[in-house]
Amino acid sequence: MKLIRFYKDNTITPGIICKDCSNTAVDCSSFGEDWNEAFFENNGLERLLAFLVENRANLPESKLDEVKLAPAIARPSKIVCIGLNYALHAKESGMEPPAEPVVFFKSTSAWSGPNDDIVIPRKSEKSDWEVELAVVIGKKAKYVSKEDALDYVAGYAVHNDLSERAWQIEMGGQWVKGKSADTFAPFGPYLATTDEIADPNNLNLWLKLNGEKIQDSTTADFIFNVQHVISYLSEFMTLLPGDVISTGTPAGVGLGFDPPRYLKEGDVVELGIDGLGTQKQVAVKEK
Amino acid sequence: MKLIRFYKDNTITPGIICKDCSNTAVDCSSFGEDWNEAFFENNGLERLLAFLVENRANLPESKLDEVKLAPAIARPSKIVCIGLNYALHAKESGMEPPAEPVVFFKSTSAWSGPNDDIVIPRKSEKSDWEVELAVVIGKKAKYVSKEDALDYVAGYAVHNDLSERAWQIEMGGQWVKGKSADTFAPFGPYLATTDEIADPNNLNLWLKLNGEKIQDSTTADFIFNVQHVISYLSEFMTLLPGDVISTGTPAGVGLGFDPPRYLKEGDVVELGIDGLGTQKQVAVKEK
Repeated sequence: MKLIRFYKDNTITPGIICKDCSNTAVDCSSFGEDWNEAFFENNGLERLLAFLVENRANLPESKLDEVKLAPAIARPSKIVCIGLNYALHAKESGMEPPAEPVVFFKSTSAWSGPNDDIVIPRKSEKSDWEVELAVVIGKKAKYVSKEDALDYVAGYAVHNDLSERAWQIEMGGQWVKGKSADTFAPFGPYLATTDEIADPNNLNLWLKLNGEKIQDSTTADFIFNVQHVISYLSEFMTLLPGDVISTGTPAGVGLGFDPPRYLKEGDVVELGIDGLGTQKQVAVKEK
Repeated sequence: MKLIRFYKDNTITPGIICKDCSNTAVDCSSFGEDWNEAFFENNGLERLLAFLVENRANLPESKLDEVKLAPAIARPSKIVCIGLNYALHAKESGMEPPAEPVVFFKSTSAWSGPNDDIVIPRKSEKSDWEVELAVVIGKKAKYVSKEDALDYVAGYAVHNDLSERAWQIEMGGQWVKGKSADTFAPFGPYLATTDEIADPNNLNLWLKLNGEKIQDSTTADFIFNVQHVISYLSEFMTLLPGDVISTGTPAGVGLGFDPPRYLKEGDVVELGIDGLGTQKQVAVKEK
């Protein structure tokens, strides 16, 4: 199943992408829930399926390419990010591959639609892109073994972990300053439930800047795979239903070029992952 | 006004502490809202006051010292913490006083009642305490000047920014691993609205371990005061209503002792801030 959220009469409407009829967004607002923590916590995916069996024929439809997409799930309680999780990206960032996962948080106020503009903050000069596989947690996870880890996943999606490099690296202390600007977490176009993704650790992912492919890799190159990351994080904190784990980006970010390349007004960023669709954003400068 | 939340029939009930009758918790559940983002965003404090003028006489009361307190406000969208914001604490941590605020996030799943047990995680050997002044945001804050910053505050509370030092410092990367365990963010006993606190930058704060006062300082020693911190953060991210900023801890944490002192089962931690009440926690080891 592919969960989406889209704008209808200026309101975010939860929906799905029709499985058998391409280009159709199905309005699930009559299900009465948003795709949020409570939904995932209370067995929402199963209940939604049962609802669809009964009601699918009566649900309003829109043309998918005519609707404006919102983030595919509601703003999560946390966005946990893994840093330097591809060896080549660690190298381009001038850092050693980590001995254990590097973990940081991104402000959830950065939550954004998959095709929304990237707003380059007023004082930013080093806004950068990062295509990443995002994992959405399906049930409360604490002290989860690697063997059981995938049982705690609701689904997968594309995430652009936008980053302001000067704020992340040059301003002292922790990375959070450079990860949290508004619009810096485009999420979607859809959440693919786990039945759609045979192996999250073997997906091609890519990013184009103005049509030029500059990130092009596979999650098979993870230093720490999805199971490892979930298990590891669950030792330090409880992962809640609907929480997002962003698993790190491969080589090809702006910081890694010589000289570095950063976003400027009018740049077009496209990114995608096998089976998880594509995003397209235009960079605009904040007024 | 002093906002609280307390357990009644196993449900968290929003309330206030009676202004003129000591030891009385007033049940405000008939107001129909929790003290959360939507409440603060929609002018909740003003609406609550108007509600109380009309309805105060009819609201159920409990003895304050007989109820179990929940966190004084609902789980926020983010807990933003400032590191090393007192010069003497920076020194005991073996770090230089920072040139600008050190910022990190704490997982909101750590959110805990002011007198709830501190659960020392299974694999923790270095769980540590940090009394801190917490600021709760009252309205959306972005690019806020220092001059205007206090207009964005809903109120103040005591926060114990519990920290696992090995996980924070010895495991590579960012501090978040050591800040996010369940129960590591006791918040309360109450949220004091701004009219109750003449100057947040001039409050005594202290912490006792098993009766021995080991943190004892004043927010007058802030390196970056409340206005500075709010203004600074609002350059990097949008602060949402109900968000919590924890402003850093003074000297006297376990890490700073020689040899270091860390929490062990049965330890009693008490902490407080002028005008904001006190917390009392017992450390228990996670099963």
